[in-house]
Amino acid sequence: MSNAFDGIEPTAVRNVTCIGAGPIGAGWSAYFLAKGFNVVSYIHSKDEETSLRGLVNDAWTSLTELGLAEGAELARLVVTSDLGAAIKDAEFIQESAPESLPLKQALYKTLGEIVPPNVVIASSTSGLRMTDIQMQCATAERTVVGHPFNPPYLLPLVEVVGGKHTAPGAVQWAAGFYTVAGKAPLVLKREIPGFIATRLQEAIWREALHMIVNDEASVEDIDFAVVNGPGPRWAMMGPCLTYHIGGGEGGMEYCLEQFGPAFKLPWSRMDAPELTPALAKLLIEGSARLAGDRDYSTLNRQRDAGLIAIRKALDELAR
Amino acid sequence: MSNAFDGIEPTAVRNVTCIGAGPIGAGWSAYFLAKGFNVVSYIHSKDEETSLRGLVNDAWTSLTELGLAEGAELARLVVTSDLGAAIKDAEFIQESAPESLPLKQALYKTLGEIVPPNVVIASSTSGLRMTDIQMQCATAERTVVGHPFNPPYLLPLVEVVGGKHTAPGAVQWAAGFYTVAGKAPLVLKREIPGFIATRLQEAIWREALHMIVNDEASVEDIDFAVVNGPGPRWAMMGPCLTYHIGGGEGGMEYCLEQFGPAFKLPWSRMDAPELTPALAKLLIEGSARLAGDRDYSTLNRQRDAGLIAIRKALDELAR
Repeated sequence: MSNAFDGIEPTAVRNVTCIGAGPIGAGWSAYFLAKGFNVVSYIHSKDEETSLRGLVNDAWTSLTELGLAEGAELARLVVTSDLGAAIKDAEFIQESAPESLPLKQALYKTLGEIVPPNVVIASSTSGLRMTDIQMQCATAERTVVGHPFNPPYLLPLVEVVGGKHTAPGAVQWAAGFYTVAGKAPLVLKREIPGFIATRLQEAIWREALHMIVNDEASVEDIDFAVVNGPGPRWAMMGPCLTYHIGGGEGGMEYCLEQFGPAFKLPWSRMDAPELTPALAKLLIEGSARLAGDRDYSTLNRQRDAGLIAIRKALDELAR
Repeated sequence: MSNAFDGIEPTAVRNVTCIGAGPIGAGWSAYFLAKGFNVVSYIHSKDEETSLRGLVNDAWTSLTELGLAEGAELARLVVTSDLGAAIKDAEFIQESAPESLPLKQALYKTLGEIVPPNVVIASSTSGLRMTDIQMQCATAERTVVGHPFNPPYLLPLVEVVGGKHTAPGAVQWAAGFYTVAGKAPLVLKREIPGFIATRLQEAIWREALHMIVNDEASVEDIDFAVVNGPGPRWAMMGPCLTYHIGGGEGGMEYCLEQFGPAFKLPWSRMDAPELTPALAKLLIEGSARLAGDRDYSTLNRQRDAGLIAIRKALDELAR
């Protein structure tokens, strides 16, 4: 098996094939259509066409509101349950089949035989490893994970990572193509279960489940706390920059000095790692890079402006 | 010690005293001023006045942009380092002194002696228990936690909970007053370390630290993943309603059936609790209450509209 990959220029892609009739597959189809691509949507059975088109239409309404690319047309969508026809002209394939390893392994075996090897196949999987998915694929070097967030037509993140047999060039190609297509790709340093964003989401979810099962908080309490508390900040600033600002003029360094011991308080159920000088260094230097040349007062003003804009926008909607 | 509390009507409060010269104390002062209250800001030392006024002025700019209450005036702020003078006319006290238990215990001992017992004293503490803080206070029945999120003048959440000696009436009074003052109080079922929102925030932070220390993600990766992925959703929808929508027409019930086993996958470092029928029931019923009479398609549309509004608002700012 070769570990090299030689694809066409990401900017030259015109034809995208999306596999899967669920909200993720349909969301991707709508998204690529809105960006002006020709899209073929593969569905497992003809019965799924009505539901798929319904999901695409709903997403199209939202995408139209955000602004379509020049020449984008809903009418460009071709729906077929013939896999050979679906992949015939594909220059990129986004696979969003059900989350079953045997099913995906069989699908990648077939795709590996019928899709030209210079076409990247990206999986929307949120929990499976590409190393496992690509196990029976004869052309595994061009298979990657391209994990979106729901709804994939509105949230920009796509986590990109290869499996054991993926060519590094295919990972780079996918990241390049997603960028061209207007997404925000995040290339992972290595294959970790759940990737980055889902792990963070899982951590919150698990702590929430513990509180609910212990009668410390109701389902409503959890959602109320997030939406009225840290949620609006996370729409514009991650936890690292948040703590960097939380430290005032002293930034992350002061924040770690001041709250360092609190990392060991038994708040959430997850043990904190040891706050070693090496970890502190990573945090302080990383936060400084995030802040760039923005000083505390600038960051503070930007955070406030963002929170005000979000609050006004949501208030306006609620009227 | 009496466990009853008999305060004035929350709607009748005109005079608020804020203790503390840091970003939280100053943020509260600015917030109450913007809502039209007379505010006395107590600082430990005269040296802190310039810094306090600077923080209040910055917050005032943001509050002005959101809209001030009728008659609200920055000039109504009185700053003093005389504690007796600071609390003389107080009808509510928001304490944001440094996070040190001995310091707060001594402060509540003094406040317990000089503040009339029908005035609620609320602590901004993010990590200490009121049961411990109120230990030396002779009038502990009116002391509560009123934990805001930073910045307290923009994020609505206030977690409210009493200590062992707090009168339930004082907790209710504080929640009522915060509501009158335009905040979003969340009364906790019981005193748990870190309260609800901070525990959720801690869970994310701890998983992020594990990924950083294991070289699975950089500081920038963490923030990039949150802001471009789950973050914008959390500004308007908590994790429970998010999964309820994630389940499509089938809601939380379908979501648990489909992803139930994945709760046990070793994604985050925190063990998930057993997904018992009882927990599933809590989740399904709670999510149904959150959804109310909104069906899947309505929720979906509302989520999309919110995400679009947030994206447009932040794009506009970035221009």
